[in-house]
Order: sequence, then C-alpha cells, then structure tokens
Amino acid sequence: MNDVTLNIGKQARTAARTLALASTSQKNAALKAMAKHIRAQAAAIQSANDMDVAGAITKDLKSSFIDRLTLNAVRIEAMAQGLEDIAALDDPVGRVQEKWKRPNGMEISRVSVPIGVIGIIYESRPNVTADAGGLCLKSGNAAILRGGSDGFATSQLIVAALQQGLADGDLDPNSIQMVQTTSRDAVGEMLSGLNGTIDLIIPRGGKSLVARVNENARVPVFSHLEGICHVYVDKAADLEMAKSIVLNSKMRRTGVCGSAETILIDRAKISNLAPIISTLINAGCEVRGDKETMAANPAVKPASEEDWSTEYLDSIVSMRVVDGVDAAIAHITKYGSQHTDSIVTEDQATAEHFLNDLDSAIVLHNASTQFADGGEFGFGAEIGIATGKMHARGPVGVNQLTTFKYQIRGNGQIRP
Amino acid sequence: MNDVTLNIGKQARTAARTLALASTSQKNAALKAMAKHIRAQAAAIQSANDMDVAGAITKDLKSSFIDRLTLNAVRIEAMAQGLEDIAALDDPVGRVQEKWKRPNGMEISRVSVPIGVIGIIYESRPNVTADAGGLCLKSGNAAILRGGSDGFATSQLIVAALQQGLADGDLDPNSIQMVQTTSRDAVGEMLSGLNGTIDLIIPRGGKSLVARVNENARVPVFSHLEGICHVYVDKAADLEMAKSIVLNSKMRRTGVCGSAETILIDRAKISNLAPIISTLINAGCEVRGDKETMAANPAVKPASEEDWSTEYLDSIVSMRVVDGVDAAIAHITKYGSQHTDSIVTEDQATAEHFLNDLDSAIVLHNASTQFADGGEFGFGAEIGIATGKMHARGPVGVNQLTTFKYQIRGNGQIRP
Repeated sequence: MNDVTLNIGKQARTAARTLALASTSQKNAALKAMAKHIRAQAAAIQSANDMDVAGAITKDLKSSFIDRLTLNAVRIEAMAQGLEDIAALDDPVGRVQEKWKRPNGMEISRVSVPIGVIGIIYESRPNVTADAGGLCLKSGNAAILRGGSDGFATSQLIVAALQQGLADGDLDPNSIQMVQTTSRDAVGEMLSGLNGTIDLIIPRGGKSLVARVNENARVPVFSHLEGICHVYVDKAADLEMAKSIVLNSKMRRTGVCGSAETILIDRAKISNLAPIISTLINAGCEVRGDKETMAANPAVKPASEEDWSTEYLDSIVSMRVVDGVDAAIAHITKYGSQHTDSIVTEDQATAEHFLNDLDSAIVLHNASTQFADGGEFGFGAEIGIATGKMHARGPVGVNQLTTFKYQIRGNGQIRP
Repeated sequence: MNDVTLNIGKQARTAARTLALASTSQKNAALKAMAKHIRAQAAAIQSANDMDVAGAITKDLKSSFIDRLTLNAVRIEAMAQGLEDIAALDDPVGRVQEKWKRPNGMEISRVSVPIGVIGIIYESRPNVTADAGGLCLKSGNAAILRGGSDGFATSQLIVAALQQGLADGDLDPNSIQMVQTTSRDAVGEMLSGLNGTIDLIIPRGGKSLVARVNENARVPVFSHLEGICHVYVDKAADLEMAKSIVLNSKMRRTGVCGSAETILIDRAKISNLAPIISTLINAGCEVRGDKETMAANPAVKPASEEDWSTEYLDSIVSMRVVDGVDAAIAHITKYGSQHTDSIVTEDQATAEHFLNDLDSAIVLHNASTQFADGGEFGFGAEIGIATGKMHARGPVGVNQLTTFKYQIRGNGQIRP
C-alpha cells in the first residue's frame, strides 16, 4: 500500500479522536470559518475550476458531466451557505437516545457518538467536497475525500479552505483530508479500509461507481445502487391528486434517485389510465406500457421485461395495470430497489396495508416520491440515500453519521 | 453453489416476507408451542445428544467443548423456558421510533421492521439452536442455522421441534431452517450471502470462528472478536468498592467476553495496589504485572507486552500502574477491543471524562464489567455482543435484530 495514503489514514484516526470530543461551538466556529475562507478564495477556486473544466472539455466528456464539474459565483456561494446551514443544525453527538434504570439501581444511557473515519468516494463534483467535509465535521467524524480526477485542482483548493477553517476553530486540519493521488489505486486502498483506519465508505456518483464500491469494499458502505421508485394509483385514488403526484414524482427532476420510474394503475378503476398517460405525455414524458396502457393511448410504446427494472433517470416512464394493492406490492417487490415507493388512495386501510407490507426504505401515502431527500425530511442536509438494511436507511444526514455507546452509571454494583 | 443450500436461502426469503407481517400473538403462540414440543421431545433430544456426545468423546475433543455440547434434563428445560421468556418480551417490530410533522403537513414516522434473513453460524452448542431460532422469530426474521457438526443430530431434533411450533402458530416452518450438510462448504456459501438471500450473519463461538466469519463474509456481520475488558481504579476510588468490582469483573465467570482481563491502578493512590492484588490472588487468580505491581506482591509474575492485548478467558489477569485517567484511557485505546470498560471512582467529573472519552461499546462507572449482557441490560435475551460501529453495538437483543423504514403520510403533497 502507498505510504502517503496510509499516512492519511493514520492522521485521520488521530484527528477523529480529538474531533469526537470537540464542543458544539468549536465545530460550528470551524464550519463558519470554512464558509468565510471559501468566499475569500472564490476567485482562486474559480480559476482552478476553469482549468479543470477546460481539461474535461478537451477530453470530450459528456455535457452533463461538465455541468456537474462547473462552478460559478452562485455555486461557490451555495457551498459557503451550505456550510453555514450545517453549522445551524443541532449537534448530533452526545444525544441521549434512550435512558433507563435497572432494578439494581444502575442507570443505562444510550448516547450518540461519531462513527470515526469516513471515506467519501465521488465523481468530479466540487460541491460534494464542501458538503461531505462539513457533514462529517458536524457529526464528529474525520473525512478522507477522494473526488474524481477531473475536478482535482478545484477540490484541492476547496479542501485547503476547509482546513483553514478547521485551524481557525482550533481543530486538527487533518480532520478533512483529500487523497492526493489521482490514480485509481487510491480508491482500492480506501475500499480495503486503509489498514483499519476507515470505518465507513460513502460513494457519491453513478451506478458504476456505486457498484464498484459495493463489490469491493471490505468495510461498511452506505449507498443506494439505484432508485427504481414506483407510484401505485389505487382504485380509491382521487384522480386529480394522482395526476399531480405522478407528474411530480416523474418529471419534477428526472435525474434524481427519488424520481419515479414505473407507474402502476389499479385495474378496478382502469378509467384512471388514460388521463394519467395524457398528463405525462403532455409534459414531454415518453410512456412505455403493457397491453392495456398501449390500448389507452396510441403514443404509448411497448414496455419490455427489462423496462420494469430500468432506472431511466430521464423523461421516460414505464406503466402497467395491476390487480389491486397486493399485485402492486408484488410488482414492486420483484422489480424495485427498496428505495422509495408511493401509493395514491383515499382508502385508509389500503394505504396502511401498502405502508406496512412494502419493504422499502421510504414508503409514502398520497405524496410524491421526490420527497426522498434529507432536506425534505428536515435533516438539514444529506450525504446521500441508503437502501441497505444496516444502520442508515433512507436519507443519510448528520444523525445517521453517528453510532452510539452505552454509558452505565452505578454505585458499586457487581453481578451475582 | 450447492442446490440444496441455495434452496434453503430461497425458502428463507419467502418465509421472511410472511414473517414480517405476522402478528405478535401469532409469533408468541408459535414460541410457546416450540417450548411445548421441546419438552414433549425431550427424551428423543436427549438420546440424540448422548450419541453426539459419545461421538465427540471418541474424537478426544476438549472437556470444555464436550460440556457445551452436552444436554441434560435441566438444560433441555432451560431451552424451553428460554423460548417462553422470548414470547413474554415486547414485540420489537412495528415500534414507532420517531415521528414528526413537516411544514407542508406530511407526517414522517420511523418504524421498526425485521432485517429479513439472518444466518447464524455457531459451534456445537445445541442451546444456541433454540435461542437463535426464537430470537429471530420474535424479531420477524427468518433464520438459517449452521451449528457445529458434532452437535448435528441434537440440533436437527431441536429444529424439528421449533418447526412444529411454527406450524402450530400457522407460520411458515421454513422460518427456521438448518443447513443440512455437515461440510464446511456450507459456511462459505452462507458467508457469500447465499445468492443475495442472507441479509446478516451472526457468528457465535470462539475467536477463530469469529475471525473466519469477519474475514470472509460478503454481508454485514454482528460480532465481537474478543473482549479485552478493563477496570481502572482511580485515585478517588472507594477501596472496598474497587476490590469488589475488580474481583467480580475478573472472577465471577472467567470464560465470558465481559470478564476483565486487565486492571489499571492510578499511581496517585498506589496504596490501592497491594490490597487489590491480594483480593485477586486469594480468589485463585494469577496476576501478571508491571514493575510496580511485582514490587507490591512477590506472587505477581512479570507481564510481557503481549499480556496487555491477551484475552485470557481464564483465572489470569494483567495489572499495571498508570498516571491517572488519561493514561488509563490511552492504555485502553491502545490495547482494548472496544467492548466493555469500567472506572471505579467517587469523583464525578473523572467518571464523566472516562464515560465520554473512551470509544467502547459499553463504558461503566462503579459497576462490574460482567454486566455486559443483554439480560442484565433488560433486553430479555441476547444473541451476542457486537463491537462494530454499525447498527448494533453492545448486547444484541430482539430490538437490535430489527432495522427501520420511513412511513410518510400525506394528503397530496408534491415537491416544488
């Protein structure tokens, strides 16, 4: 293993120990100072970013990639503001989650503590550097950042600003480090846990990056591979509400993981089918459907078996008729990704059946799947969405970046 | 992969879906029926066990191994009683852990749900078969059990009794299955996740078993490799309390993971050293110490560097003098296993410093390390102790065998 990378791991572990004990005001002062330094160094960050973007253009990379890489005055200010927003959040560390007394008089408290050292592997999106660094700091964790090589110069200056903020707050600048090498080996080393110094990996990026991380990580990972989200329109749905929720779930933003990819319509009220298809098509969405959906509108294209498990991340939706809520649940269980699914119905019992039976991280009744977002949950900010069964599920905010320990207070108790 | 084992995985996944929706009374009825069948088949279980024990004796296995394998009337009744105790616990599934309303009127609830399918890999201890099966059932999880081959015949009959109980409660008998092969390949297949059908592995057994599971599992694991637990006797300790807690922490039972392996004495009250050493030696404990400890009592043997990181699981303890609470924390951080550590002091501020700064799953003030136990926490029963940072930390009871999902109730909310 690369000595430089290994050393980053050791430094992070040392920083994590002091960070776990840092006071709320110290962490918040550092976050505010980070925002100040981002603003003060905006011009230098912009020049570095211009260079990174120019490099990416000569490589003929996709325009969506270039867009995510590109900073401007508004986006730089948004990074600074984001850090101040994180400062305004409640401290997630030291919360007494539960407390109880045992018959022998011992008092047991379950108290939130930081996880330790978190590795974040992401694509060439400079704003993730500030977001991830800020969220890890607030939750008392040391961060090891490894962004995409095309945004390296930009991220380097952002990390420098974050480290100046740490120093201003009397915190160890190694609390937020960037892996200096641009080689792909660094990713492999991080996935192996950097010799036991990394406690958790969070990947931020497309499916291929997340898949690589999930397959190769030897430490826990918070991730979602894809968001194949569904809206089921029950026979007892209010049609206007259904149209509004389907349209918003699919089309508000098509590139986010919480956007709907499949719409299921209850056969018992098949008259809902045509107006919902029209709503989508009028909004510029391609609809791919089963026989019934195709019969309802000539613009509908045939859906293949593959469509039901495809995350389009685009203005395309698959649609099919199902025999009631149980068939909807069966479809979602077979083709979904346990991310976010919604039912539209005025029937309370059917709604509860859907909310209880479906094994997804987020299940909604009469609301848009696009609410799958830490900010919309009131978490303030999120580092991603997790679909695993362990620890964090759904939006990963600062509280989800903590673990806990039991503190037991006694007065001499021994065990019989 | 072995078709038979793969099929067990598929059957478990199917059972898990129905089990997640089983009512509390249905699960409790099954648990009580299981206890009934264990009692009714006690004679057959005993004969099978006699056979297993005879086989192990011909292999000349260790007496502690034979002891753990051996059943008798009292132990069979304890298994049945254990299942009834699990029935009496509150249902951990469906608990609303948190609930809040968003400004747009949406109500978000975080509700506990089962994890899914849990694989338990354990040594030849027949009682683990009933305990693990019962705890998984209560928490709505399907269990795939793989016990040591030397207890195979016994475990097979116990599983048959559990499955009869499941059938009596109208639950899928495949909710608790045993891997039928006695080959070690089955373990490897379980560690790979049985083609995505296993969500979590829990190893129960010695260090080599746990190490193998930790190294090779491709799914999350709840485990602790070892319990190198400490008692720190601060200068402000009450000496009588310190003697009592040190003695109990080390000697109540030396073979459990929560037993103390190292005692740290504050140099500022070095007069505590001699009486604490005597207490241990008088109880039949071998003491290995640093220079100061050796100087305090001629019976003390020299401790090597290796002693500080050794889990004796025997009547042996290592002991050293440290310069106050921070040196104690530094020693524990360097040599401990983040399991369970205790401070004895009458100084509240020092106690809080120890409880807050030490990164162990369980930290105690003025109480014995042997309280590291789910029953002692009031969890009713535990399937083990976890020292990882993810999800479950400390005793793993039925609540720790659940995860959660977010249920969101709206009335047509869409995202702006």
